[in-house]
Amino acid sequence: MAASEFELRRKAVASGLAERRLDALLVAFSPNLRYLSGFTGSNGNLLVLPDRAILFTDPRYQIQAAQEVSCPVKIAKGPLVLDLAAVIQKRCLRRIGYEPARMTCDLFESLNARLPMKASLVPVSSWIEQMRTIKSPEELARIRRSVQTNSRAFEETVRHLRPGMMEQELAAELEYRMRRLGAEKPSFETIVAGGARSALPHAQPTKARLEPGGLVVVDMGAFQDGYASDMTRMLFVGSPTTRVKRTYRAVLEAQLAAVDSVRAGASTVHVDRQAREVLKGYGLDQAFVHSTGHGLGLEIHEPPRIGKRDSSHLEAGMTVTIEPGVYLEGFGGIRIEDTVAVTAAGCEILTPTSKELRAVA
Amino acid sequence: MAASEFELRRKAVASGLAERRLDALLVAFSPNLRYLSGFTGSNGNLLVLPDRAILFTDPRYQIQAAQEVSCPVKIAKGPLVLDLAAVIQKRCLRRIGYEPARMTCDLFESLNARLPMKASLVPVSSWIEQMRTIKSPEELARIRRSVQTNSRAFEETVRHLRPGMMEQELAAELEYRMRRLGAEKPSFETIVAGGARSALPHAQPTKARLEPGGLVVVDMGAFQDGYASDMTRMLFVGSPTTRVKRTYRAVLEAQLAAVDSVRAGASTVHVDRQAREVLKGYGLDQAFVHSTGHGLGLEIHEPPRIGKRDSSHLEAGMTVTIEPGVYLEGFGGIRIEDTVAVTAAGCEILTPTSKELRAVA
Repeated sequence: MAASEFELRRKAVASGLAERRLDALLVAFSPNLRYLSGFTGSNGNLLVLPDRAILFTDPRYQIQAAQEVSCPVKIAKGPLVLDLAAVIQKRCLRRIGYEPARMTCDLFESLNARLPMKASLVPVSSWIEQMRTIKSPEELARIRRSVQTNSRAFEETVRHLRPGMMEQELAAELEYRMRRLGAEKPSFETIVAGGARSALPHAQPTKARLEPGGLVVVDMGAFQDGYASDMTRMLFVGSPTTRVKRTYRAVLEAQLAAVDSVRAGASTVHVDRQAREVLKGYGLDQAFVHSTGHGLGLEIHEPPRIGKRDSSHLEAGMTVTIEPGVYLEGFGGIRIEDTVAVTAAGCEILTPTSKELRAVA
Repeated sequence: MAASEFELRRKAVASGLAERRLDALLVAFSPNLRYLSGFTGSNGNLLVLPDRAILFTDPRYQIQAAQEVSCPVKIAKGPLVLDLAAVIQKRCLRRIGYEPARMTCDLFESLNARLPMKASLVPVSSWIEQMRTIKSPEELARIRRSVQTNSRAFEETVRHLRPGMMEQELAAELEYRMRRLGAEKPSFETIVAGGARSALPHAQPTKARLEPGGLVVVDMGAFQDGYASDMTRMLFVGSPTTRVKRTYRAVLEAQLAAVDSVRAGASTVHVDRQAREVLKGYGLDQAFVHSTGHGLGLEIHEPPRIGKRDSSHLEAGMTVTIEPGVYLEGFGGIRIEDTVAVTAAGCEILTPTSKELRAVA
């Protein structure tokens, strides 16, 4: 990302301070910090002032911060809050915005206790997260690469897949190929779950082997150049039964209906309802126990959430997943998931992988 | 882990409530939750009462919670705080302990606003974290396996290493072998940094190739059966210069001196000082910009911290890293790290990997 992109974002924040009656915004949440500064270290605070921004970090990140960050950097010898409080005092800041969904009670107390008289911390919710929902062309390009890497890793691995492989082995192969293709790491713990275990929406891979007659759910994503991808595909070891085929068709129809409803201006609850109504027609709506999708970018789960209680609206430039699923104890689970980019007229499905139920034999 | 181990831990908490004048302890931080219940889902709250404990989670984890957890489980339809507040009201709880270092300001406000009259949230710091510092025999066995997997992955990979490989490729190979050997995932982002980049204590692997004449730092760890390992070893591409050899010897002496000082009862600052004083003798103490070590277990970084401002004492059953390093801009960085288990008489070095500077040719 060019330094100018970070500078533009910081300027947008700086010029939004006044309308929020803030003298500064304190950003400590790592993805927000990276979004505004490019800094990827694990310990940093960014203080955005009207005329500048200052990054506070510790000596472990001295060289790295100088390479990554285009704003002034302050290397703290002790806890960052001491240096932060000193700058707040020196510059006579009164109202300092902080991120209440991201700051722990302890850190709040620690900073609050060190503030000069007349200075106070003001909760500011979701400001940077909302900025982050709309991706720039450079961000979209990175997400696209992450999605492509992820799908290629899936294709290359599944091609060699044979019955009897352990869930853990398959997960290891998927992640290895992902990395060989340029990913930094998986964007979450790869899910490979066979047979009845596929009914666990967030199963961790075990030493169980992929046995004939069983569904296999593969839910995987990459982080590449800092940006996430997310995809779920289903395999079947052997020949699927009529019930498997029928349930698969129901989920696929639900997924396609939800994808079809994605466009700038659509409400998230509307998109969610499209998937839910298809499943209702199959008597499967009670088995769909999670939301239809979520935004992704610097985090694997970002706003907006696409669920039955989520009333935000999609906007062009958002990247979201569409991933309905049904979970039937004893039978198994089926989920199909793409990463899509919202456009004015609809959406672009970024995930190139075919959505047929793949037989493994 | 046997259900009885979790039950014993919950009983220890339950019987510690009275002396803290608490009616219940609320545990939401994932490693603490896992420690007390075995639950590995991403969204859960455990309420420990004097006579029982209740796990609150969402429908995604219904089946998984039933399999993992031996206490009653409540599946919430909406935000968990609503169900939590209802139980607090029904059971007339007055003083509910919470973890201020782990709870966000938003969650605190959300729960606090829903509490019945006369009920209040009471900060309780590091209680479960302190319990976790002393490992049970079963936990120690898991850490040992994690350490062994990690070292085997290193050996198997380095054996085939040739100059010219990219940092990212080497990191991918290390993680792949780790997983093939039974790890769930790396316990942190594997660090592979060559040449001058080795001077970044927390470098992320890049596409840079390992070139002759350069140091390579490899810092890697596994999570296996939930438990972490952590090791740093140094490679050199080609024949090391006199300066490299001298600096390596200094760090190795510092590491051995610190390991020698580990025993139950030793203060952490004393252990840290042993490493620092050796480096001072070489004029390198200013280049040692972090702590000597840290505890590890369900998390990669846990108490105790072994640094120059840390005044706790080691106890038998703790597992810690010993990892002094020096970082010289332009020249590179050298760090050597083992995972050790503290015993009454000293410590057991769990890491089996030899500590010579390895030449890659």
